[in-house]
Amino acid sequence: MKNKIKFEKIAIIGLGLIGSSLALAIKKHKIALSTSGYARSIKTRQVAKKIKLVSKVESSLEKTVKNADLVIICTPLSSYKNLFSSIKPHLKKDAIISDVGSAKTKVMDEVKKVLHQEFDFIPAHPIAGTEKSGPESGFAELFINRWCIITPYKNSNKKNILKIKKLWEKIGSSVEVMSPEHHDRVLAITSHLPHLIAYNIVNTAADLETVTKSDVIKYSASGFRDFTRIASSDPTMWRDIFLNNKEAVLEMIGRFSEDLSVLQKAVRWNDEETLFKIFSGTRKIRKKIIAAGQDIDADDFGRSKKKLK
Amino acid sequence: MKNKIKFEKIAIIGLGLIGSSLALAIKKHKIALSTSGYARSIKTRQVAKKIKLVSKVESSLEKTVKNADLVIICTPLSSYKNLFSSIKPHLKKDAIISDVGSAKTKVMDEVKKVLHQEFDFIPAHPIAGTEKSGPESGFAELFINRWCIITPYKNSNKKNILKIKKLWEKIGSSVEVMSPEHHDRVLAITSHLPHLIAYNIVNTAADLETVTKSDVIKYSASGFRDFTRIASSDPTMWRDIFLNNKEAVLEMIGRFSEDLSVLQKAVRWNDEETLFKIFSGTRKIRKKIIAAGQDIDADDFGRSKKKLK
Repeated sequence: MKNKIKFEKIAIIGLGLIGSSLALAIKKHKIALSTSGYARSIKTRQVAKKIKLVSKVESSLEKTVKNADLVIICTPLSSYKNLFSSIKPHLKKDAIISDVGSAKTKVMDEVKKVLHQEFDFIPAHPIAGTEKSGPESGFAELFINRWCIITPYKNSNKKNILKIKKLWEKIGSSVEVMSPEHHDRVLAITSHLPHLIAYNIVNTAADLETVTKSDVIKYSASGFRDFTRIASSDPTMWRDIFLNNKEAVLEMIGRFSEDLSVLQKAVRWNDEETLFKIFSGTRKIRKKIIAAGQDIDADDFGRSKKKLK
Repeated sequence: MKNKIKFEKIAIIGLGLIGSSLALAIKKHKIALSTSGYARSIKTRQVAKKIKLVSKVESSLEKTVKNADLVIICTPLSSYKNLFSSIKPHLKKDAIISDVGSAKTKVMDEVKKVLHQEFDFIPAHPIAGTEKSGPESGFAELFINRWCIITPYKNSNKKNILKIKKLWEKIGSSVEVMSPEHHDRVLAITSHLPHLIAYNIVNTAADLETVTKSDVIKYSASGFRDFTRIASSDPTMWRDIFLNNKEAVLEMIGRFSEDLSVLQKAVRWNDEETLFKIFSGTRKIRKKIIAAGQDIDADDFGRSKKKLK
């Protein structure tokens, strides 16, 4: 059953880390007879051609989506509105449109207004990625053992949902279907707040008078360097995510700040008990993440021993 | 010159991650004719004996420090005051005392009052570690390519400082000498604040009504899991660090919160420019950390590809 998923032509718009990884995975698993790819920048298109990401790299959206029975949007969220308007006149009848965006509720409202239910938009979000960007950073195995969340509209075609589900399963992911509202709250705490905090602490560190940047870099192995990884993710993508999941992100910042005030007060007043209690509870959750196959158990993410070679 | 460093007997008090790694490194590089080790818990002493961390595992502090020309304290900071009082009567004349503690100014004041300059305390702090605890988590290579900071008193014996410096260089570290005050500020931003933030976000995530723990665990690969590593460090050790570097930590929390408010406001008011500017500046610092050999450049800390085996 799983092996029967097949598209005539899959169009991938946006060839960054996720778009290029998806293209490679689709190619590897022979999910489409042909694939087309589009990127706004000439440089990206040249790289995509060179490394053969897709059967055909196109320089116009029209050609990219022409005759495609599946179009997957892999561009920053701020581009959706114009992009959907541009491709709509050129879509094949019955084409499915999907995406890989990290926030759902707001863009789904926007897209609805453009597509008017003439085409079926089945939003998806693979919970996978690295801190690298660009077409050359993609790899076909990125989605293996990762979750992909699908957030269909209430009136989405069930058969189309199943097709999207099978595509992600075929390339190694497990699929969960949920409402866009729940997706946005879950991602706000598991992804959006962590990134905001990471960007923020790197910014705070860069902005001190008494501690130099050279100090920060030299002694970063004591904790700081862990934050710099996710704080080096793509700035455009992340700007768009925060603006498209504003409500849930603001709620999580509020809760985080509240909790930080409790810790701050405990430090100020030597409240040993509160500190110990909070620091003791957090180990369990890491153990569960490792047990769920979502992280490795090697010390220091396995870095420390790696460097000894 | 480097190879000439040699002690008669090195006593290691506290056999956790750092104490056990140090014991193994001293053994590997034959830095002492003999070593003794002490841990308060019987279980730790049994493990230490079994894995042969030191020449002799002792069950009393008196025996541990007897005839030692170097005593290295590797216990949580809150134990220092009593510990120094307990060992003082049994120390060999001219014994050097050192430590590996993560905060300096406050404990150095305390220790001064106990030792009355009768013995030379040369504080040290290796910027190395993993999220694991206990004697079985140590390994001799932990300090290779890491920095070790020495914060001597103004009247410390220069020869003794040099001996401690050579010990750390011999086991793979680069050594920097600085004032305890500068050390505490540098560590507050590079280590203490990152740990506090990590503990805090894990705590915030555990405390939500609309997002379940199972959601958080499942989708943790989207950023959250990076924080859980340092948030699973030893709770006693970290409680003590915050209480012993209160002033600098509170200053850094203040700055961090200030910066977070700026980001929060930018999200609320769709201030694309501010978000993009802040998110763009952070990549550079990671590149410098990698160039300085303090982190690896592999995507995702090298985890993503590792799991594919």
